[in-house]
Amino acid sequence: MSVSPPPLAVSLGDPAGIGPEVISKCWDNRDAFGLPPFVAIGDPRSLAAVWDGPIEIVDEPRQADNAFDYGLPLIQLNAPSADTPGHPSVAGAHCSLDSLELAVGLARSGSAAAVVTGPVAKEQLYAIGFQHPGQTEFVAERCGISPGNVAMMLAGPTLRTVPVTTHLPLEEVAKALSSALIESRGRAALRGLQRNFGIPEPRLAIAGLNPHAGEGGMLGREEIELIEPAIAALASEGWLVTGPHPADTMFHDRARANYDAALCMYHDQALIPIKALHFEEAVNVTLGLPIVRTAPDHGTAFDIAGQDRADPRPMAAAMRMAAANARYRVETA
Amino acid sequence: MSVSPPPLAVSLGDPAGIGPEVISKCWDNRDAFGLPPFVAIGDPRSLAAVWDGPIEIVDEPRQADNAFDYGLPLIQLNAPSADTPGHPSVAGAHCSLDSLELAVGLARSGSAAAVVTGPVAKEQLYAIGFQHPGQTEFVAERCGISPGNVAMMLAGPTLRTVPVTTHLPLEEVAKALSSALIESRGRAALRGLQRNFGIPEPRLAIAGLNPHAGEGGMLGREEIELIEPAIAALASEGWLVTGPHPADTMFHDRARANYDAALCMYHDQALIPIKALHFEEAVNVTLGLPIVRTAPDHGTAFDIAGQDRADPRPMAAAMRMAAANARYRVETA
Repeated sequence: MSVSPPPLAVSLGDPAGIGPEVISKCWDNRDAFGLPPFVAIGDPRSLAAVWDGPIEIVDEPRQADNAFDYGLPLIQLNAPSADTPGHPSVAGAHCSLDSLELAVGLARSGSAAAVVTGPVAKEQLYAIGFQHPGQTEFVAERCGISPGNVAMMLAGPTLRTVPVTTHLPLEEVAKALSSALIESRGRAALRGLQRNFGIPEPRLAIAGLNPHAGEGGMLGREEIELIEPAIAALASEGWLVTGPHPADTMFHDRARANYDAALCMYHDQALIPIKALHFEEAVNVTLGLPIVRTAPDHGTAFDIAGQDRADPRPMAAAMRMAAANARYRVETA
Repeated sequence: MSVSPPPLAVSLGDPAGIGPEVISKCWDNRDAFGLPPFVAIGDPRSLAAVWDGPIEIVDEPRQADNAFDYGLPLIQLNAPSADTPGHPSVAGAHCSLDSLELAVGLARSGSAAAVVTGPVAKEQLYAIGFQHPGQTEFVAERCGISPGNVAMMLAGPTLRTVPVTTHLPLEEVAKALSSALIESRGRAALRGLQRNFGIPEPRLAIAGLNPHAGEGGMLGREEIELIEPAIAALASEGWLVTGPHPADTMFHDRARANYDAALCMYHDQALIPIKALHFEEAVNVTLGLPIVRTAPDHGTAFDIAGQDRADPRPMAAAMRMAAANARYRVETA
């Protein structure tokens, strides 16, 4: 007897951001977007502030299977006070953190198939004592994984990229790179392609840091000193890795057909091509966790919150990818 | 009475590279590619080594108007010895430099509408005493323009990018940037959009250097200290400039509709998006010259020379763009 997978757990994110709006629009368009059942987690007032649709309060995810046809299933977390869209508060930050924590717990226990996270406001989270660079590191810690062993992947229909370094000034990137870091992110990317995407023998293309991948040392030596040794180490473990490739010739149609993911050395090297090609469909996937976690690759957008202008397609893409990744995990478990 | 413009002058580039092959394939496909009459300049033996088609030796460009229907018009420059495709030589480097110089002279005199340059081999050119970083700087010098006042544009059907710095190790980019350099490249880009592309009020989007354009100084201060002052200076001259924009959200469809060119801070920031979106159609255009000069954005590709594998579409795109740019120049002169 085949049993349908449990619903996705979707944290609303900051109540004053666009999370509640895009999640409710996802429920409105659940058939057109091809979405699996999901249960939202957060304050129902933040949904009601931007949406007139039906909310089905549930106690645990499995109830969403039936409720999903009638309304947006929600596990209720009340913040001490309601937020106005576009005006974040400390109370809202507490609520967004509680909803993230509960979503992770439900996925860890198996009650939810995966976690999809709405956008949070870091400034407000820092004000309440949050000490992680972002939700990714918080989720990693809650799962008992060191942040160094997880990797952020941006995944779209024809390209997946994984940055080795993320939010650093450009000038500090070269200093922050090491063979060990390139190796560990590469390994997380390769294992993630196996576990989350069902690719038994994944191919990883590794970018150079410098123009023309350093042109044999003429335009920088990081390729020779850091990247090539990391590639050799991964290859010696049997992984299919190539590079260092000149970053500018890695991302056209024919080049993309040669690999399953590109390992990039810095934020914009990974983010420019994925957003140029797949702006509405790029999903942030955290690799290296015991659970599946995805997120749309946008922020709280307080400037447009509450104006019915937010595009729900990135959130819908994050939900579809979470469900697909969770299926691969079950199949290969 | 309307007079047709003179032909394009096309230097064959290094005789042992793929220049002769892609240029002869352009003549073969001149109708399908929508090409204007052009005259090649170089050693006929380098064409004959890779191509069986008819060559029409001419003495000056205007003769190509009639000859173009019967064969590939060529102004003959004999190297002391013939090269084998894939095996560059010092004699070939001399020939490639002579052909470049003659092409520039023909355009400066008005005998040719524009210059399109085939790819050259820098290593061989350096061996014969060439002291410029590339053909762009050589052409600038022959036109009496300081290399600091020209700018390289990569132009495709839906995106044009201009890098402020080019062939530098990534770690040196921040140090190499100055407000003055950003301004002068920006000005060259804006004037080039007017003169070469016929856009009377061009819009220039200027990228940040750091992730999220520095996030208000948290991720680097170059935006605040160097880029914003340059934007203010250009705006005070009446130019339509915006930025600094986060580089990762500048290059998707809707974002590209808001500007005519993107000014980028470093090589891969400019080259990754243009090649991801327009690999076969991206053309290298030198802005700031008294003449029109374009080139395909690829190298000599010695590894595939003489194997009939080179793609002529980038050269064809460079020829079409040279002709279009030359037309705008005449119309707005």
